[in-house]
Amino acid sequence: MQLSDRITQLTGDGSDGWDVFYRSRQMVADGEPVIELTIGEHDVRTDPSILEAMHKAALGGHTGYAMVPGIKSLREAVASRIQKRTGVPTTYENVLISAGGQAGLFAAHTAVCNPGDRALYLDPYYTTYPSTIRGTAAVPVVVHTHAEDAFQPRAEDIDAESEGATSLLINSPNNPTGTVYSRQTLDGIADVCKRHDLWLISDEVYDTQVWEGDHVSPRALPDMAERTIVVSSMSKSHAMTGSRIGWICAPKEVINRLIDLATNTTYGVAGFIQDATEFALSQGAELEDKVAEPFRRRRLLAKEILAQQNTVGLIPAQGAMYLMLDIRATGLSGEEFANKLLDTHMIAVMPGESFGTAAAGHIRVAMTIDDERFAAALNTLCEFAKDIAETT
Amino acid sequence: MQLSDRITQLTGDGSDGWDVFYRSRQMVADGEPVIELTIGEHDVRTDPSILEAMHKAALGGHTGYAMVPGIKSLREAVASRIQKRTGVPTTYENVLISAGGQAGLFAAHTAVCNPGDRALYLDPYYTTYPSTIRGTAAVPVVVHTHAEDAFQPRAEDIDAESEGATSLLINSPNNPTGTVYSRQTLDGIADVCKRHDLWLISDEVYDTQVWEGDHVSPRALPDMAERTIVVSSMSKSHAMTGSRIGWICAPKEVINRLIDLATNTTYGVAGFIQDATEFALSQGAELEDKVAEPFRRRRLLAKEILAQQNTVGLIPAQGAMYLMLDIRATGLSGEEFANKLLDTHMIAVMPGESFGTAAAGHIRVAMTIDDERFAAALNTLCEFAKDIAETT
Repeated sequence: MQLSDRITQLTGDGSDGWDVFYRSRQMVADGEPVIELTIGEHDVRTDPSILEAMHKAALGGHTGYAMVPGIKSLREAVASRIQKRTGVPTTYENVLISAGGQAGLFAAHTAVCNPGDRALYLDPYYTTYPSTIRGTAAVPVVVHTHAEDAFQPRAEDIDAESEGATSLLINSPNNPTGTVYSRQTLDGIADVCKRHDLWLISDEVYDTQVWEGDHVSPRALPDMAERTIVVSSMSKSHAMTGSRIGWICAPKEVINRLIDLATNTTYGVAGFIQDATEFALSQGAELEDKVAEPFRRRRLLAKEILAQQNTVGLIPAQGAMYLMLDIRATGLSGEEFANKLLDTHMIAVMPGESFGTAAAGHIRVAMTIDDERFAAALNTLCEFAKDIAETT
Repeated sequence: MQLSDRITQLTGDGSDGWDVFYRSRQMVADGEPVIELTIGEHDVRTDPSILEAMHKAALGGHTGYAMVPGIKSLREAVASRIQKRTGVPTTYENVLISAGGQAGLFAAHTAVCNPGDRALYLDPYYTTYPSTIRGTAAVPVVVHTHAEDAFQPRAEDIDAESEGATSLLINSPNNPTGTVYSRQTLDGIADVCKRHDLWLISDEVYDTQVWEGDHVSPRALPDMAERTIVVSSMSKSHAMTGSRIGWICAPKEVINRLIDLATNTTYGVAGFIQDATEFALSQGAELEDKVAEPFRRRRLLAKEILAQQNTVGLIPAQGAMYLMLDIRATGLSGEEFANKLLDTHMIAVMPGESFGTAAAGHIRVAMTIDDERFAAALNTLCEFAKDIAETT
């Protein structure tokens, strides 16, 4: 029996650099004391107050079908938060509650791309980007960014691939690089989008994790609200990764169509999770800061540690919960480095090659363990890199 | 800005008969005492024991990313239930946990249909069927069933549309008709699927609500397991409509691809909802019977009431939580009848025309209010129909 092209070709081909991740997971399962610095999962769980709000909603009877677009008061709370953070007038009609950020990315591409359309994304990229585009039967087209630019995309590189394209997917603060796109970068991107009539799909799930400079939402740039679809979620900002809830913010007529789509793809999001989310948002910046604080702290720790050596380079790490480290001085690929580090020191990191080709010779370190173990692991990593660099 | 064809054409054109539903909802919102017999929402909520299991899982820390395919023990529990009910050897590798039955229908069509492929479905149909197919950029092709067959599909009608088609979507026990497909019907369908190399997508969400005869899963028919994708959920069987959890059961290699797809569409289902589901399934048939019992009881009540008159005809109502009533003796369309009934008696039912054209001149009554009010509403409905029939 034949399956569809989009599903059989979904994962693409070529090594994806995730072998070291699966190997480390297996070692953990086998009881080995691996120090995991791989994926973006907080070392805290969802705050108990949010879980109590969820339980209260469930016991209160909010267990039947919820409105597909999301509960109106939650859509209003999200809209109000967006307007406050970006200054762009936003109402509940600009907001659809989605079953997480990933569902938002899939829905956004489905909404704008016809099968076969060119959909641009930037390398390095979050793992699902090209496969999400393939899943909608559109064609992913990569645009490379460069380590020497600290992975700020160049407008001319995007421009070169934009002819006949439908959309551009960006992510700032960026996973995996930790780069926060500057106003200049975003102005350049906006200019390309307007010139080539591209939809801009802006993944802003890390917008509460900004350590340097300011997060600018491209929806706030001149004439961009009409062509920008913002995808965000509660996962990173509120340590609610497992609750699978997020939102899409877009022009009202786009949201109306996305509601039609959601009726046919997910039929909405659990009402008790929506109520818990409304509670979480009502806690304001205080709760968000509490969730972000450990990463802010560990990034400063990391800067101190890395300043004491000159083998491993640090991409500025302006935001998000990761460090992108340049290990090219070791002469190893990111994949070789990560595998050796796991074998010799039981420290698991992600090869840069897991995120495309632009971050080859780099590794991504998730700042997701307690400060003391994190500092120790980073020191070990630096010494390990120095030893290799000196012996080659 | 241009949106994609699939999303702008999602809802199709033509009246969909849902006006009376939205009108009744508005009346309820305005405080009017409407008796709602429209949608398939239980009049009980999710059992508190399930909600306690969910809360325990959440407080216990199951709030991070869950495995995308579903938790292995839950996949095993679902597989074991399916094997027990159908006799078909089934392991966890045949099961993907999905974000509800609707998400399963969308994923199944995405997995088998290329854009532009012909995907068959039967009229009358659950509202989202053609739009789900359009959402995947495939082309919905309708096959009509007939009131005089009690809406059992005819193999020759399906056969006539099968040339070059990719899939056939069926639903037994059926919403909206209450028909349970006979072994003979299913043998005929299986024969067509094999002859035309069709995937059979079998929506079995009502499989615990069978009042007459036996539910046969077509996956259990000879040589059908390899080409059947079963979609089901906890919504109807366990009154967990709002929890948005279900599953897909299919050949292992199909499930493997569907896991890839889920990584890019939903990134899995909340772990605490999965734990609650595992608890609910562990309660066995007792809990399922408890949830189904009110509909079994009300269906008997309805048969008694309808036997006392001969204006309104009853399609046998072998399963599911609805009655399909033939009101053609009134000379009205289903839509006219439903609107008049709402205006004169504040009773809201769904016009048969909401579910395609095959059930024109019928109305669907959801058995979702307490027995006494249900019986009273049905008596009123019958008298109302009789008055119209006699005065025309």
